[in-house]
Amino acid sequence: MKLSALGEFGLIKLIREATLPSYRSSPDAFKRLVIGIGDDAAAWDGRPFIQLATTDSLVEGVHFTFESSTWEDLGHKSLAVNLSDIAAMGGQALYALVSLACPGDVDAESVLDFYRGMTGLGSQHGTAIVGGNLTASPVVCATVFVAGEAPSGKLLRRSSALPGQLIAVTGELGAAAVAVSALRSPRRGAIEVPPVLMQALLRPCPRLVEAQVLVEEGVECAIDISDGLVADLGHICERSEVAATVYASQIPVCQACHTVTPDSLEMAMYGGEDYELLFTCDSSTLERITARLDCPVSVVGEIGEHAAEPEIAVIGLDGQRITGGHTGWNHFGK
Amino acid sequence: MKLSALGEFGLIKLIREATLPSYRSSPDAFKRLVIGIGDDAAAWDGRPFIQLATTDSLVEGVHFTFESSTWEDLGHKSLAVNLSDIAAMGGQALYALVSLACPGDVDAESVLDFYRGMTGLGSQHGTAIVGGNLTASPVVCATVFVAGEAPSGKLLRRSSALPGQLIAVTGELGAAAVAVSALRSPRRGAIEVPPVLMQALLRPCPRLVEAQVLVEEGVECAIDISDGLVADLGHICERSEVAATVYASQIPVCQACHTVTPDSLEMAMYGGEDYELLFTCDSSTLERITARLDCPVSVVGEIGEHAAEPEIAVIGLDGQRITGGHTGWNHFGK
Repeated sequence: MKLSALGEFGLIKLIREATLPSYRSSPDAFKRLVIGIGDDAAAWDGRPFIQLATTDSLVEGVHFTFESSTWEDLGHKSLAVNLSDIAAMGGQALYALVSLACPGDVDAESVLDFYRGMTGLGSQHGTAIVGGNLTASPVVCATVFVAGEAPSGKLLRRSSALPGQLIAVTGELGAAAVAVSALRSPRRGAIEVPPVLMQALLRPCPRLVEAQVLVEEGVECAIDISDGLVADLGHICERSEVAATVYASQIPVCQACHTVTPDSLEMAMYGGEDYELLFTCDSSTLERITARLDCPVSVVGEIGEHAAEPEIAVIGLDGQRITGGHTGWNHFGK
Repeated sequence: MKLSALGEFGLIKLIREATLPSYRSSPDAFKRLVIGIGDDAAAWDGRPFIQLATTDSLVEGVHFTFESSTWEDLGHKSLAVNLSDIAAMGGQALYALVSLACPGDVDAESVLDFYRGMTGLGSQHGTAIVGGNLTASPVVCATVFVAGEAPSGKLLRRSSALPGQLIAVTGELGAAAVAVSALRSPRRGAIEVPPVLMQALLRPCPRLVEAQVLVEEGVECAIDISDGLVADLGHICERSEVAATVYASQIPVCQACHTVTPDSLEMAMYGGEDYELLFTCDSSTLERITARLDCPVSVVGEIGEHAAEPEIAVIGLDGQRITGGHTGWNHFGK
C-alpha cells in the first residue's frame, strides 16, 4: 500500500509494531522509557530529570519555498517547530542539533543566515545550538533535533485528558494556513497577504513560557497544534480514549484572516501550523491560567466519555453538528 | 562564497561563530555543556551522567541509491553511522529518533523495512527507536538522531591526543570506498563487487563494544573514520593541536579490495565510510586493548609535536614522504 493511501497515522501505528523488538532487547533503555512513539516528544528517565527528545524536518518545495521564505526564516522555523513539541510536553528546551542537507551551489552566507535564524530564536528560549551535520542534497532539507528536560511527574501528555474537562487553546488560529493557501492560490500576486499572516507562517512562536504556566497550574494533557485543531484534538482523544465536542463559534480565529478569505473559520479549525497549545483542564484551573498568561486563552469545547464514532463532534455556527469534512493536515495526502 | 568552494569544514568554523549568541543567552545550557560543535557528538552534564547527542543524514542520490541498497540496508546504515559517532565518544547509545522524508508514492512496506533495518541493528546494541517524524519529500532523506550516555570524566574526545602516542585503528579499511567506486565506475556491471565489500558499504558495524574497552583501558582520544583515515586524523590533529605521521605500509587494507582495484591502499587511507575507530594511546595501553578485542587493531603511525604544515606526514611504501594528495571525503566537493 502506498504511503499516500495508508496515511501518516496509519503508518505510525505499523512503525510502533515494527520497532518493538528494539525495546525488548534494550532492557535498560526500555525500563527508563517514559514515552515512546506517539506523543509530541520521546521521554525517558534521566535521573533525576525526565529527558525529552524530538525531531522535525522542513523540506524545500514541500514545507517552504525560497520565494516566500528567507534562509533566516527557515532557521527560525525549523527550530520553532521542535521547540513547540518540547513546549507541548511541558519541558525546557536546552540543546539543539541540526542536520542540514542542501545543494553545493548554495552560498555559505545563506547557510550562516539559517544558523542565525536558529540562534536568534534559541537565544530567546535558552536553547543552545550544539551540533549537527551538513550534507549535500538536491533540495534543502533542514532536520532539527531538540533535547530538553522536565521535572519527573510533571509531563504534559496526549493521554491524560479526562471526561468533563474543558478544551482550551492559547493564542489565535488560522493565520499560517491562510498564508499558505494565499501563496498557493492561482490568484497569488493579486492577493495581498497581510504581514501578520506571513509572520505567523514564517516565524511561529513556540509556547515554551506558556507551557510552564500550564504545568505549574496542574495541567496534565496538552498537544501543540501542528496538524490542525481538530486533527490534533483527535490525537488526544485517541491516546486518552475519550471523545470531544468542539464549538465553531468559540474558535479564536485570527482577525487578519477574514481580509483574505471567506474560509477563515475552516482554516482555523483544520489548517495546521499554528504551534499554539491545545490543552484540557477543569474550569478553576483555566481561570488561574487565563489570569497568568499574556496571550489569549479560549475554551473551544469539552471532553466527553469515550464513544463510538465520531470521536469529535464539531458544532457549527448554526448549532447543528457538522458531519464529515476535513480532519487536518496529512503529510502524505490522505 | 559557494559551499562547494568553502568546503564543509570551513563552513563549520563559521557556524560555530554564528551560533555563539545561543550559548551566551542560555546560561544553564552553557554551564552544563561539555562538548559543542566540532566533535563526533555533543555532550552535556546530565547529572550524574554525561548526555551525548548526535545526528546524521543519508540522502538518496548522494549517499545511496536504491539500485544497490534495500530499504532495510538504509535503515541499518542510517542508524549505524550515528551509533558510530556515539562509539567515538565512548558512550552507550540508548535512544534513537528518526526523521524520514520520502515521496508519497513509496510503499508502506518499504518504510516498514527501513524501520526493521534500524530495529535489527538497535536490538544488537541496546538502542530503542523511540520517536521521530515522517514527511513528504521529492527524494528520500533519512536523518537519525541518537541520544546516549557516558560516565563523567570518561569521554573519548578529538582534542586529547598527545605527542608521543601511537595512532591505532580497529578493523580493516577501504572496503566501503572501493564498493562505492566500483558502483560508480563506468565499467560497473563488468566488475563483480565482492559481497564483503557490499556488506561493508551497506551494513557497517558501529564499534560500540570496542569503544567501551578503549574507555576501560584509559584511552582518551578517538574519532570514527567516516571522512577517511587521513582526513579524520586531521580533525584530531587540529583539535588536539598536534601533528601526526602515518605509515602507508601499516594501513590494514581490507584484502578483498585488491581483487577489484589497484588503488586499494589509497582507498583505505582516503576513502571514508569505514566506521572504524581511530584512537591514540601509549604502547602498554595498546597491548592491553589488543589482547581484549576480537577485531584486528593496527598501529598506523604516531602523534608528534604541533608544527607548521603539513599537520600530517604520510610516509609511502618506499619510505618517502608523500606530498599533496587527497584529504578525504568532503560533503560539498572541495
